[in-house]
Amino acid sequence: MAEISVLTPQESGLHAKYLPVPSTVRTAVAGVSGYAGGELARLLLHHPKLADTTPTFLGRPGEDAAKLYLTDLQPQLATSGPSPEVVPFSWDRLVDEGVEVLFLATPHEQSREWVPEAIARNIRVIDLSGAWRLNDDANRAVYKLTDANPDLARNLQAEAVYGCPELHRKDLRDARIVANPGCYATSIILALAPLLEAGIVDLSPGIICDAKSGISGAGKAATAKTHFMYAADNLSAYNVFGHRHTGELLEQLHLDASDIQFTPHLLPIPRGILSTIYVRLIESMHPEKIESIFRACYATSPLVRVRGNGNLPQIQYIVRTNYCDIGFELEPGGKRLVIVSCLDNLLKGAAGQAVQNLNLMCGWNEAEGLL
Amino acid sequence: MAEISVLTPQESGLHAKYLPVPSTVRTAVAGVSGYAGGELARLLLHHPKLADTTPTFLGRPGEDAAKLYLTDLQPQLATSGPSPEVVPFSWDRLVDEGVEVLFLATPHEQSREWVPEAIARNIRVIDLSGAWRLNDDANRAVYKLTDANPDLARNLQAEAVYGCPELHRKDLRDARIVANPGCYATSIILALAPLLEAGIVDLSPGIICDAKSGISGAGKAATAKTHFMYAADNLSAYNVFGHRHTGELLEQLHLDASDIQFTPHLLPIPRGILSTIYVRLIESMHPEKIESIFRACYATSPLVRVRGNGNLPQIQYIVRTNYCDIGFELEPGGKRLVIVSCLDNLLKGAAGQAVQNLNLMCGWNEAEGLL
Amino acid sequence: MAEISVLTPQESGLHAKYLPVPSTVRTAVAGVSGYAGGELARLLLHHPKLADTTPTFLGRPGEDAAKLYLTDLQPQLATSGPSPEVVPFSWDRLVDEGVEVLFLATPHEQSREWVPEAIARNIRVIDLSGAWRLNDDANRAVYKLTDANPDLARNLQAEAVYGCPELHRKDLRDARIVANPGCYATSIILALAPLLEAGIVDLSPGIICDAKSGISGAGKAATAKTHFMYAADNLSAYNVFGHRHTGELLEQLHLDASDIQFTPHLLPIPRGILSTIYVRLIESMHPEKIESIFRACYATSPLVRVRGNGNLPQIQYIVRTNYCDIGFELEPGGKRLVIVSCLDNLLKGAAGQAVQNLNLMCGWNEAEGLL
Amino acid sequence: MAEISVLTPQESGLHAKYLPVPSTVRTAVAGVSGYAGGELARLLLHHPKLADTTPTFLGRPGEDAAKLYLTDLQPQLATSGPSPEVVPFSWDRLVDEGVEVLFLATPHEQSREWVPEAIARNIRVIDLSGAWRLNDDANRAVYKLTDANPDLARNLQAEAVYGCPELHRKDLRDARIVANPGCYATSIILALAPLLEAGIVDLSPGIICDAKSGISGAGKAATAKTHFMYAADNLSAYNVFGHRHTGELLEQLHLDASDIQFTPHLLPIPRGILSTIYVRLIESMHPEKIESIFRACYATSPLVRVRGNGNLPQIQYIVRTNYCDIGFELEPGGKRLVIVSCLDNLLKGAAGQAVQNLNLMCGWNEAEGLL
Repeated sequence: MAEISVLTPQESGLHAKYLPVPSTVRTAVAGVSGYAGGELARLLLHHPKLADTTPTFLGRPGEDAAKLYLTDLQPQLATSGPSPEVVPFSWDRLVDEGVEVLFLATPHEQSREWVPEAIARNIRVIDLSGAWRLNDDANRAVYKLTDANPDLARNLQAEAVYGCPELHRKDLRDARIVANPGCYATSIILALAPLLEAGIVDLSPGIICDAKSGISGAGKAATAKTHFMYAADNLSAYNVFGHRHTGELLEQLHLDASDIQFTPHLLPIPRGILSTIYVRLIESMHPEKIESIFRACYATSPLVRVRGNGNLPQIQYIVRTNYCDIGFELEPGGKRLVIVSCLDNLLKGAAGQAVQNLNLMCGWNEAEGLL
Repeated sequence: MAEISVLTPQESGLHAKYLPVPSTVRTAVAGVSGYAGGELARLLLHHPKLADTTPTFLGRPGEDAAKLYLTDLQPQLATSGPSPEVVPFSWDRLVDEGVEVLFLATPHEQSREWVPEAIARNIRVIDLSGAWRLNDDANRAVYKLTDANPDLARNLQAEAVYGCPELHRKDLRDARIVANPGCYATSIILALAPLLEAGIVDLSPGIICDAKSGISGAGKAATAKTHFMYAADNLSAYNVFGHRHTGELLEQLHLDASDIQFTPHLLPIPRGILSTIYVRLIESMHPEKIESIFRACYATSPLVRVRGNGNLPQIQYIVRTNYCDIGFELEPGGKRLVIVSCLDNLLKGAAGQAVQNLNLMCGWNEAEGLL
Repeated sequence: MAEISVLTPQESGLHAKYLPVPSTVRTAVAGVSGYAGGELARLLLHHPKLADTTPTFLGRPGEDAAKLYLTDLQPQLATSGPSPEVVPFSWDRLVDEGVEVLFLATPHEQSREWVPEAIARNIRVIDLSGAWRLNDDANRAVYKLTDANPDLARNLQAEAVYGCPELHRKDLRDARIVANPGCYATSIILALAPLLEAGIVDLSPGIICDAKSGISGAGKAATAKTHFMYAADNLSAYNVFGHRHTGELLEQLHLDASDIQFTPHLLPIPRGILSTIYVRLIESMHPEKIESIFRACYATSPLVRVRGNGNLPQIQYIVRTNYCDIGFELEPGGKRLVIVSCLDNLLKGAAGQAVQNLNLMCGWNEAEGLL
Repeated sequence: MAEISVLTPQESGLHAKYLPVPSTVRTAVAGVSGYAGGELARLLLHHPKLADTTPTFLGRPGEDAAKLYLTDLQPQLATSGPSPEVVPFSWDRLVDEGVEVLFLATPHEQSREWVPEAIARNIRVIDLSGAWRLNDDANRAVYKLTDANPDLARNLQAEAVYGCPELHRKDLRDARIVANPGCYATSIILALAPLLEAGIVDLSPGIICDAKSGISGAGKAATAKTHFMYAADNLSAYNVFGHRHTGELLEQLHLDASDIQFTPHLLPIPRGILSTIYVRLIESMHPEKIESIFRACYATSPLVRVRGNGNLPQIQYIVRTNYCDIGFELEPGGKRLVIVSCLDNLLKGAAGQAVQNLNLMCGWNEAEGLL
C-alpha cells in the first residue's frame, strides 16, 4: 500500500464554498452485518435524497461470498419486495459504480487500512470505527493500530474531521475523512461542550461522567457478556478508568486526564445511553442561565433537544430516534450541577450521526432523513 | 470399556424394602459449570441431610485443570467464606471418596458413556441429560448416541428409571440409574398423566401442547440465539414437530405420535416454562370433577400444586421454586379443556427434580431441601 | 342525539368509482393520549400525503382543557421544534376546520356514541375501538354498548366496513365508517383466511389459536397487571374461552364457535403479537402448495410478508413495522399444519392498519407512509 | 395516645449483657402486602429459630377484613399445604398472642404512630419505614410526620437504633426500636463507612454517589411510573438533590450536605441496587491498602462480601441474596477511587436486614436464616 498516491484536499478540489450541492450521491456501506451497519442501511434506504439510488452493500475484501441478501444479515429490513444484495468487497467495483461516499462500519484495524485506499480512489469516507477519531498518538494507542504508510496516515489523520456536527459543522462540508464519534463520547461531549466553552466549570473537583449503555453497544458477537442470561436483570460497571472513548473527551473538550472521569455501565436493555454528569460551577448561577447557555449553543442544531431545569431526559424518549436530549438539575445552592444526556447509541451515537455527517458533506439539511 | 463388569441390581443388594435409610450420603456433581449444574450445587450445599458433607464438584475427565473454585464458575454461589473447589474428574477419586450418588449435568454423549462406568463402580447415577430417558431406540435416535458395549447399555437402559417422582415414586427407592426428565416433558406429563389415566381424553382431535420456555433452556453457550439482542423483547417458535422431548411424552403417556403435538417457544425471560395444553374430553364434564382428578392424583405429591377451575398459574409464581403448578379452564360446554402447567425449567424441570429423586433414592422426604 | 339526521351513503355521494383521488385530506385524532393514539399521531405527522397539514389532536368532549401539547401526552414525539397542540373536543371545531376523516382511539362506549355524530356531520370515521366491528348483536354484547338511536345505529352498523384491507380492500374506498380490527384478530384472520377460502381445512378437530401479546395490548392504565413487577419475567394466559376478539374471528372467517378456540397470553415485552395456530388439513398436502395459497392471496398486499415452509416469523422482525408476517410448518405427514403469524399490536394491529385504511379510503397507495 | 405510659429501657430490663438468648421468639408482621413485607414473610417462615412458631400476619388497624390468606397477597409463597391467615390488626391480639417483636412494613406515618403504641405494650419493633431513621428533626422533615406525644416521640427517637448491623451491632442486642435502614442508604453507607473511618477520604471535591435501583424500590402501587411500558427498556434519574435517603447518609457517615451528592436512577429490572461511588483520596494509596481497610472492617460481618481491586460486583450476583457486595477500582495514580456496592433492595436493603436485626436482638448468629 506504500505506493498509494493521494491528492491533497486542495488538489481534490474540495473547498466548501465552491462545492455544488448534489441532488443525490452514490454511497456504499462496508460492514453491513453489525448493529450500526443495519441501522445505517435502514436510514440510507429511506433517505429522501437517495430515493433513486440504492447504496452498495459490501462484504469483506477477498471474500467470494455466496450470493447474500441484505435481509439475510438484517431480517428486520425485509419488505414485501426483493431485498438488496450484499456483494463481495472490491475497490474496482466501488470505482466502477462511481461510489462517492463510503461508510465503514468495520473493525478499527480495517478502517485504519481502508481509509487511505478510499482516498486514493477519490472516495470520501465516513468511518464509524475508532480508527481515525484521535489525533494524539498516545490516545490512539489503545486501539493498537499500525499503518502501512505512516507518513500518509499522519497527513490523513490531520485532515480527518471528528464528525460531531454540533462542534465541527463547517469542517464537514468538504471533509474527505469523517471520523464518526463514539456513542458514549457523543453523549458526554454534547452535554459538556457548551458549559466548558462558556467558561463556567470549576475543573478542580473533576467532572464525573457516570454513563450507562444498552447491550447493543457491546456488539453482535456472541460472548459470555452478551448472553441473555448474563445481561438480563443485571447492571455492571466496566472499563473503569480505561474506556477507549476517554481520549475523545479529552481531545474534543480540551481537557486533561485529571479533569474528567468516565465510568461506563452495561444496562439490561437493547439500546440507549444515559450519561449522568456531575459538574461544579465556578460560581453560583441561576438555572435559567444554564438553560440559555445550552439553548444558544444548540439553537441551530435540529438533532439536539435541550430541556429546562429539572426536566431530565430518559432513555425511552430517545430510543430509535436520531436525537440527543440534554437536561440538567442545578442544586438550589447554584453550584452543583447534574446534567443528564441521552441518545440512542446506534443512531445519534453511530448510524444516525453518520447520516447527519453525510448530509453536511453534501450541503443538505443536516436532519434530512433523520426526523 | 467392553471389559466393564457390572453387577445386576439384585447382586448389588438394591431392594427397596430392605434398604436402610441413611442419615446422609456422599454425592458428586459432574458438569457444575452449566445452569442446571449451578442450581444443583446450590440445592446440595443447602440440603439439610448433606449439612456435614460437601459434594464433590468435578471438571471433565482428562482435564488437569488449574485450581478452580465453584464460585469461579457460579459467582452467585459466593458466601463470605471460602468456596468449594472444583476438582479434575477421576473415577479413582470418586471411588476413594466413597461417592455413592453421582449427578451428571453433562452433555448427552458423555452421560451415555459414563453411566456404565459409574454402575461398574457401584455408584448410583442421576443423569440430567437426555441420554437414558428413552427406552425406544427409535425415539432415542434423535440424540445420535453410540454405545461401546451395546448389550450392557441395553440392560442398563431397561433398568433406568425415568425420574418423574409423581409417576415412578416407588421405582426410585432402589434405582441405580435415574434418567432425570426433560423440562418441557415434565410440565406436560404432569398436566396430562392424571387425565389420560382417568380415561377421559378424546384423542381423535389430537392433544396440542403449546409450550414456552425462558432462555436458560437454551444453555450457557454463547450463540446467536442466546445473544441478548436476539432474545430480548422477542418470542419465537422453534423445533416445531421435532423437539427431542417429544419421545418422553409418547413413552411416559403411552401415546402415539398422532395423538399429541408439541411446539416449544423461546420466551425473553431468564427462566420458567408455561405450557398451554389443549384437550378435548370424551364427554362433557363438570370442572369440579377435573379438579378432583388432579387432586387425587397429586394428593401425596408435595411439589405439585393443583389449582381450581379458571385459576391459572403463571411463571412468576413458580420461578425459583421446585414446584410444578397445574391449573385449567373448562369451556362452559364442558368438553374443551385448556390446562396450564408451569415450572422452573432449572428446578422442577432439572436440578430440583434431581434432588427430589435423590431424596427418594435415600428414603427421605421427597421435598427435603426443596421447600 | 335522537334528532341526528344522517344521509344515506348514496345521498352522501360516496361511490367508489366516481370518487376523485385527493392530494391530501384533513384529519383529526380523538384519544391521542393512549398507545395506539400516539402511534397514530406519529404516522400521520410523517405521512407524505399529509405533509402540508397537521392533524387536529383532540381531548375529550366537554373538557375545557388547560393548554396541552402533544408532547405532554406523547413525549417520544418531541422534535427540536414546537409541538402540535391538543385542543378541547368540539364538533363545531371539527366542522369549522373541515375535518374529513376522524380517527377514534377512544373507549368502546365513546366510539359507539360518536360515530353517528360524525356521520351526521359528513365526517368519515376510522374507529380503533371494538364498538363497530361486530355485526352480530350477540357477539357485540360483550362490549355492553347502548345506542341512543337504535335504528340509526343498526343502519350504520350494517354500513360499517371491517377495516382489514386484505379482506375488504374494495369496500374501503367509499366507506364512511371503518371499524379497525382488533390486534389479535388481525394476526389470526390473516393467517387463516387464505386456507379457509381454499377449502383445505378440516374443522372437525377445531382450530387452536395460541396467541401471545406484549403489555401495550393491556392499555395505558396503571393497574396491578401492568405493574412492571407483575409483568416482567412473567407469562400468563388470560380470558381463556372469553376474549372479545373471538367474535371477529367467527364473523370474518365464517366459523362457528366450535370450530375455533383462542387463548391469549401476556408476554413480558412492550409490544408485538405472535399467534401460533394449529390446523388439520382435509387431506395430505405439499408445503409448496400451502405457500402458494398464501402467496396468491397476498400477492397484491404490500403489508403482508409470506414466508416459506419452516421459515417462521418472530416478534423482533415485525416490531415497530406495519407488516404482518406469516410463516408455517407442515408436518412431514402433510396433514398437521402450524402457522405462525406476527405483527406489532400497535401498528398493523391498530394505528398502522388505521392509516392503511385511510390510504384506501382516499384512493392512495395503501402502504403510503407505512414502509 | 397522649396517655401512653412507657417504661424506660432500663425499667424494661433490657441490658444486653444480662439478656438471655431465647430459643425462639414470637413475631408479627404488619404490612405484609408489599414487596418488603412479602420477602419478610418468606424469610420468617423459613427461619430455623422460628420453625415451631408462625409469625402473626396483620392487616391494617380498624379493618374488619374478610378472611384473607397470606397467599392471597403473596401468591409466590404458596406451598402445597394451607396458607397462614392474615388477621385484622389489633393491639389486644398482639398482646394476647405474646408477640415479642413486631415488624412494621407500613407507611412512614403509620410507623411513626405505632412505635410508641408497641413500646407501651412492651413489644420490640423493627420498623422498615423511614419514620425513625433520622435523629435530626430537619432531616426527618422530608417525611412530614407528626407526633401525638412529641416528648415521648423525642425520647423514643433518641433510643431508636439505626439498624445497620455492621455499624451498630452492639446496640442492637437490647434495642427496643430498630429503624431498619433505607435500601440506597445501606448500599452507600457500607461502601463509605470504612474509608471515612480510616480518614483517607478528601472531602473537598465532594463524594458522588450515582445509584441505580430496580423497580420494586418504587413500591407496589400501580402508577404511571411503575407501568411496564414506562419502566421497561428505560432508565431515568429522579429526585436529584432531593432523595429522602440523603439524611441517613449524612447522619450515619457524619458528613455535611456539601460533602456528598446522591443521584438515584430507576433501572428496568425487578430488583437490585448498584451504587457507583466516586471518592478522591487525601493521598495516593496502593489498592491492597484499600482492600485491607474494607476487609478489616467487615472481617466479622458475614453478610458483606468484600472483593479485590478491579473485581467489581454486579447486580445478578446479589439479587435474591442477603449480601451486600463491595468492590472498587483505584486509578493507577492512586488517588481517584471508584467503589461499586451492590445489594438486593428487598433483602439486604429491607427484609433481609430486618431479619439480621432480629437475629442480633435475640443474640443469635446474625446470618441465621439468611444464607
